[in-house]
Amino acid sequence: MTRAQTLHVDEWVAQIQRGEVRAVSRALTAIENGEPAAAELIQKLFTHTGNAYSVGITGAPGTGKSTLVDKLAAHYRGAKAAVGVIAVDPSSPFTGGAILGDRIRMQSHHADAGVFIRSMATRGSLGGLAQATSDAALVLDAAGKQYILIETVGVGQGEVEIVRLADCTVVVLMPGMGDDVQNLKAGLMEIADIFVINKCDREGADRFEEQLRAMLSIASERDGWRPPIVRTIATDNKGVVELAGAIEKLREHQNAAVNRRAKKAEYWRHRLVEMLEQRVVSQIVGTRGGEERLKALAGEVAERKKDPYAAVEEMLKERVR
Amino acid sequence: MTRAQTLHVDEWVAQIQRGEVRAVSRALTAIENGEPAAAELIQKLFTHTGNAYSVGITGAPGTGKSTLVDKLAAHYRGAKAAVGVIAVDPSSPFTGGAILGDRIRMQSHHADAGVFIRSMATRGSLGGLAQATSDAALVLDAAGKQYILIETVGVGQGEVEIVRLADCTVVVLMPGMGDDVQNLKAGLMEIADIFVINKCDREGADRFEEQLRAMLSIASERDGWRPPIVRTIATDNKGVVELAGAIEKLREHQNAAVNRRAKKAEYWRHRLVEMLEQRVVSQIVGTRGGEERLKALAGEVAERKKDPYAAVEEMLKERVR
Repeated sequence: MTRAQTLHVDEWVAQIQRGEVRAVSRALTAIENGEPAAAELIQKLFTHTGNAYSVGITGAPGTGKSTLVDKLAAHYRGAKAAVGVIAVDPSSPFTGGAILGDRIRMQSHHADAGVFIRSMATRGSLGGLAQATSDAALVLDAAGKQYILIETVGVGQGEVEIVRLADCTVVVLMPGMGDDVQNLKAGLMEIADIFVINKCDREGADRFEEQLRAMLSIASERDGWRPPIVRTIATDNKGVVELAGAIEKLREHQNAAVNRRAKKAEYWRHRLVEMLEQRVVSQIVGTRGGEERLKALAGEVAERKKDPYAAVEEMLKERVR
Repeated sequence: MTRAQTLHVDEWVAQIQRGEVRAVSRALTAIENGEPAAAELIQKLFTHTGNAYSVGITGAPGTGKSTLVDKLAAHYRGAKAAVGVIAVDPSSPFTGGAILGDRIRMQSHHADAGVFIRSMATRGSLGGLAQATSDAALVLDAAGKQYILIETVGVGQGEVEIVRLADCTVVVLMPGMGDDVQNLKAGLMEIADIFVINKCDREGADRFEEQLRAMLSIASERDGWRPPIVRTIATDNKGVVELAGAIEKLREHQNAAVNRRAKKAEYWRHRLVEMLEQRVVSQIVGTRGGEERLKALAGEVAERKKDPYAAVEEMLKERVR
């Protein structure tokens, strides 16, 4: 690292801290592309973070999640809070849907410097995307955003990883999709801090809420919190204030927790192990031909031509070389 | 490795393949204690495995899981199949409940060489226990057991990891515990291949089954399989034949799958990455003072005194030293 480059990163950090949109934007691109400069940047930014409150918002496609996120962002803007939005789409190719989504969604906020909206798409593993999203949130945090809304499509394990990064997780549902509650996948029950029934003017909303309440009544409390249900019609801006209220209530609940500091340390203990695992796995699997090598080894193990310990040793050795 | 030791392991392997109880028992102890010989043994045994069908059985304490496992083992013995039982208890200390459980449960089968019953308890991480259970199943497989029943207590993430190793996952529930369906934790919905309602002579069994069916009706099919519900009264040996039938049906369904080979390779791809991660993490965190070091670093990161990348680098460096 030359002195010039070091100065450059320091200046970049300063620009981000002043909330300069281009510097923030460039940081998110560097994170998305996995540029080495991104890790250096995060390292320098990190001590200036920890002030934002992040809200993960997830749900199946078609539930009106994006509209809800837009309205929530507008609500916070109305209260003079700076807002960052990260829309994560694990299913779209890098140059496809996500960027198009950016353009469409920028329309309502683009004149407002207090809202920063950015899409992140998958490049390789979901684990990498979770890391990238986490880093992007740190950049927005350092840039002075008070609320960071992280929106993800889908309800798979990877998406769960992503929303788990947030301080608060909102699961968006809607009545009348297929078998009514079919989107209520089991995993969502465990991560939701708040449930939203969007498009609640649709037929079957009452029955849907009843079913949801029945399911929630059998779930156990987590840390003394029972997930509330908020009914919204995002397109009409209905229920958005109530949602923001529920988020604040959770935040107060979390702030009042006696073990808050220990919980934060525990969160980072978990993250550090994940980062460590990912670091090593990407060193081995992420190299050129690494994934093919792993798949070939897995095939040999499945056919009992090789034992799994030997396969792991081989991968470790190849890395050292 | 001296030639004498190599011969020794080869002889051990031969004894296990002949199904000698003492050799099998010694192997499981070596696995449980994490002895280096265990890894060597698994390596040599591995090519002789892949013939057993493993059934993971999980559910909350008090659901009668152990009795059900005993009856199912007896059913297979009646059909002249060799059976191995691994009872995993993540909550009990190493020398406590699990071993006591062994003694009590050996009573009904101890005169029968066709059934091998063994408890495994936690020594350190659940990840380690999942690995140990997987290895123990390989030993029983090599020893010629046709069915391996893996019983776990509890319904946490760790237990899910353990039952996920099995070819078939049975979730045991019962009517009338607290709020009726309170044990039906969300995570279980996603892993169950078969649901058992045990103690189904209890009050509320019909309502319980109805609620369960309602929940299942909104879940989506996995690989063309819809989890059936089997009602049992394990203490009276009722429904055990039906449970065995449901297991066979799933097995046939799996055998008929066109992508079976690809699925096995995919399973091992996933396992190899896990083993790789675990190997590296245990090299770092599993060393003397490693966990304390990790916690201290996590605390510093939580307080923004250190950035997470620097913390990960520190851990990696300390390992190289």
